[in-house]
Amino acid sequence: MNEINALFHPHSIAIIGASNNPKKIGYQILSNIISSGYEGKIYSVNPEAKEILGIKAYPSIKEINDDIDLAIIAIPAPYVPSVLEECGMKKVKVVIVISSGFKEIGNIALENELLSIAKKYGMRILGPNVFGIYCASSKLNATFGPKLVYPGKIALITQSGALGIALMGWTNMNKIGLSAVISIGNRLDIDESDILDYLSLDSETKVIIIYMEGAKDGRKLMKSLYSINKPVIIIKSGRSKIGSIAASSHTGSLVGSDIVYTTAFKQCGALRAYDVLQAFDWAKVMSMQPPPINDEAVIITNGGGIGVMAADACEEYGVKLSILPEDLQYQFKKIIPFFGNAKNPIDLTGQANEEDYYKALEIALKDDRIGSIILLYCQTAITNPLKIAESIINACSDVNKTIVTCFIGDIECENAMKKLEENFIPTYPIPERAVSSLAVYYKWLKYKKRKINPTISF
Amino acid sequence: MNEINALFHPHSIAIIGASNNPKKIGYQILSNIISSGYEGKIYSVNPEAKEILGIKAYPSIKEINDDIDLAIIAIPAPYVPSVLEECGMKKVKVVIVISSGFKEIGNIALENELLSIAKKYGMRILGPNVFGIYCASSKLNATFGPKLVYPGKIALITQSGALGIALMGWTNMNKIGLSAVISIGNRLDIDESDILDYLSLDSETKVIIIYMEGAKDGRKLMKSLYSINKPVIIIKSGRSKIGSIAASSHTGSLVGSDIVYTTAFKQCGALRAYDVLQAFDWAKVMSMQPPPINDEAVIITNGGGIGVMAADACEEYGVKLSILPEDLQYQFKKIIPFFGNAKNPIDLTGQANEEDYYKALEIALKDDRIGSIILLYCQTAITNPLKIAESIINACSDVNKTIVTCFIGDIECENAMKKLEENFIPTYPIPERAVSSLAVYYKWLKYKKRKINPTISF
Repeated sequence: MNEINALFHPHSIAIIGASNNPKKIGYQILSNIISSGYEGKIYSVNPEAKEILGIKAYPSIKEINDDIDLAIIAIPAPYVPSVLEECGMKKVKVVIVISSGFKEIGNIALENELLSIAKKYGMRILGPNVFGIYCASSKLNATFGPKLVYPGKIALITQSGALGIALMGWTNMNKIGLSAVISIGNRLDIDESDILDYLSLDSETKVIIIYMEGAKDGRKLMKSLYSINKPVIIIKSGRSKIGSIAASSHTGSLVGSDIVYTTAFKQCGALRAYDVLQAFDWAKVMSMQPPPINDEAVIITNGGGIGVMAADACEEYGVKLSILPEDLQYQFKKIIPFFGNAKNPIDLTGQANEEDYYKALEIALKDDRIGSIILLYCQTAITNPLKIAESIINACSDVNKTIVTCFIGDIECENAMKKLEENFIPTYPIPERAVSSLAVYYKWLKYKKRKINPTISF
Repeated sequence: MNEINALFHPHSIAIIGASNNPKKIGYQILSNIISSGYEGKIYSVNPEAKEILGIKAYPSIKEINDDIDLAIIAIPAPYVPSVLEECGMKKVKVVIVISSGFKEIGNIALENELLSIAKKYGMRILGPNVFGIYCASSKLNATFGPKLVYPGKIALITQSGALGIALMGWTNMNKIGLSAVISIGNRLDIDESDILDYLSLDSETKVIIIYMEGAKDGRKLMKSLYSINKPVIIIKSGRSKIGSIAASSHTGSLVGSDIVYTTAFKQCGALRAYDVLQAFDWAKVMSMQPPPINDEAVIITNGGGIGVMAADACEEYGVKLSILPEDLQYQFKKIIPFFGNAKNPIDLTGQANEEDYYKALEIALKDDRIGSIILLYCQTAITNPLKIAESIINACSDVNKTIVTCFIGDIECENAMKKLEENFIPTYPIPERAVSSLAVYYKWLKYKKRKINPTISF
């Protein structure tokens, strides 16, 4: 665990293959590490340079007169073993082998050589064929992906490099906060289970998303999934016939029977998502909101139509819509026009402004008989989406109760939605996605309560 | 049909209840009509004003010395019958009753009074309880929704006012082009079927989306759906128990048994969507792209992972992935690095730049054995999304073949996606949505080919 910790929180890093050429991966990684604000010591290794990006370059890691926690290797595959040997002699704790050209193109012997060297010295290896690691709490962006990452509480473990890099950009644009990104690539040594075990103890990570085409070691993964006390959302692709062939050509993974994965995930309380948006939809509410205090959900809306859609989705995804007690209906009635609806879904009508939303929310937030809130808003000519958002933020600042929201409208709505999420109130573009995400939160709580013993023994 | 035509293409409009007060609906509608560039004659009616927004105000429609095709009534419900009577005497062809306060709050007698007046004069009524109509080809935004609407080929018919207005803003922000928006509200007279019959002949409309909680007249709707030769996507809410109760409280619709709707839609070749995003996803490809020339689809990607995801989705949604003939594989092989994949999904690898995409697309576009293309792109540090988009646009400008795309990345990707859609190449944020949309195009073509006789007689 000490070595895995050094992967996320190294005191010192050596980038072997650092370069002054902006087109080289060794340049991009060093440049990202520097600009991410990493506070440990950074060393660059390149026998052909004296200085790289303002940092003194060493001809070899051996020449560095300091202990190195993490070495990052970004040189052509054939040269990796000898450099790894040097890392071992230098007592490096953990090495990220960025380089590709190993198992994924059939060079199995070369890849196995790396493992024996690492074992000889008790070093751990992440990779080969990875884009690196990002860790928000150590301000470390040791990837050749985008420079900017939006920090938060979701960890992303990805077997696909291209997808992982693209999602770093996508989450940053959408201000979806990440605690860590780990590219696991060929998983010669460190695999998704090792990372899960580490993240289970990481106070910065609330939810974990894994993209995988196949587990490296099924039993080990089940053990880790079963032990972890945080929601783990898994996108497992390669379900289809052609998809599984493509996966084996892509990462060399044996994707295995899909039904086995479904069963195993269920037994271990892991949440299986079927696409990337779904995974982040779910992760948003579980990373931003407290768990619901009971099963009774309430819909508050200014549009009858989206209220009906949300009610349909509640039935579909298994969210229980509360049958409101008379006294609670009476409280809502007092703030709703006579042509509205004080029964769940509560229809404030198109006339509802920010004050009406505030009052309705206040009732729902303060009453302990309501466990969660689905708040919907259709933009109208007479209301200001930003003011509605501020109203929601204010109401929620007093009482901590699970809320998901859906705003539909133009750019003003989009800005209001950004404001909501900056204040940790998850928001979705359609009611169905808000409800599906809340439903998964409920589902996970149920998994957590009654984790059954897996019938497949570890 | 003459009257319905006047609804979309009136030569003259009178806004009864036009107002100088920006908070009034009568102001918003007149202001939208003026700013939308409508080229017919506009009259405002308000006994208490001399001029409204620079247009002379008449005390009554009777005083206007011109024929009026379309009257829009936005005054309190109790005053509507007498004004409608005047419209009848004035030989107005069609009236939009914006006003609410009728059947939806229990005022059935008042609503029926409107119908008898209209029938007496042979006038048609849209409404009451509607937000108006938008028609791109007559440059008419006669709604109290957003001023700006992005013109295009998708018509939206909505029973929910709040949702319709919100979607006008949302489509404009996302540059999803609309040919028409019709708020059908209480459907006292004109209903979704009348509008469908009109749109079936409207050369500007390629695809129709309907949001409904219940059909006004099931048989009539089936007839219209069966006759129309354009894709009709229906979001029918109120599927669940609580949802159906909420729907009946919202629009007074009897939502009916859901299985009846599913069966009826299927028999008539209508496409049932389960949420708003899905409906517009599907409409995008069918409004922007030609139909596939055969069943053989090909995936082109720079990321193995999203290629696998797309392949999974193809199996799930029923898109046939082509088993590429040797000669075609050979052509692809020539432009792909040795560690890529020339079998479907075609993996150009993360090194692929705009030229590689162009060459791969060129092969797929020119070969008649390929019927449709699913093009995927994960943003990388070494490629420029906008250049990739331009490359796609250039390649597609020569050959007209069905293509759907998926770009994942940051703001540069988002801009590239906008550029693609401005050039009528539909793009989606995840591979699954691209594939699902293509699948629906295939499904609709099959419906079209073998429309069976509905077992429920009209």
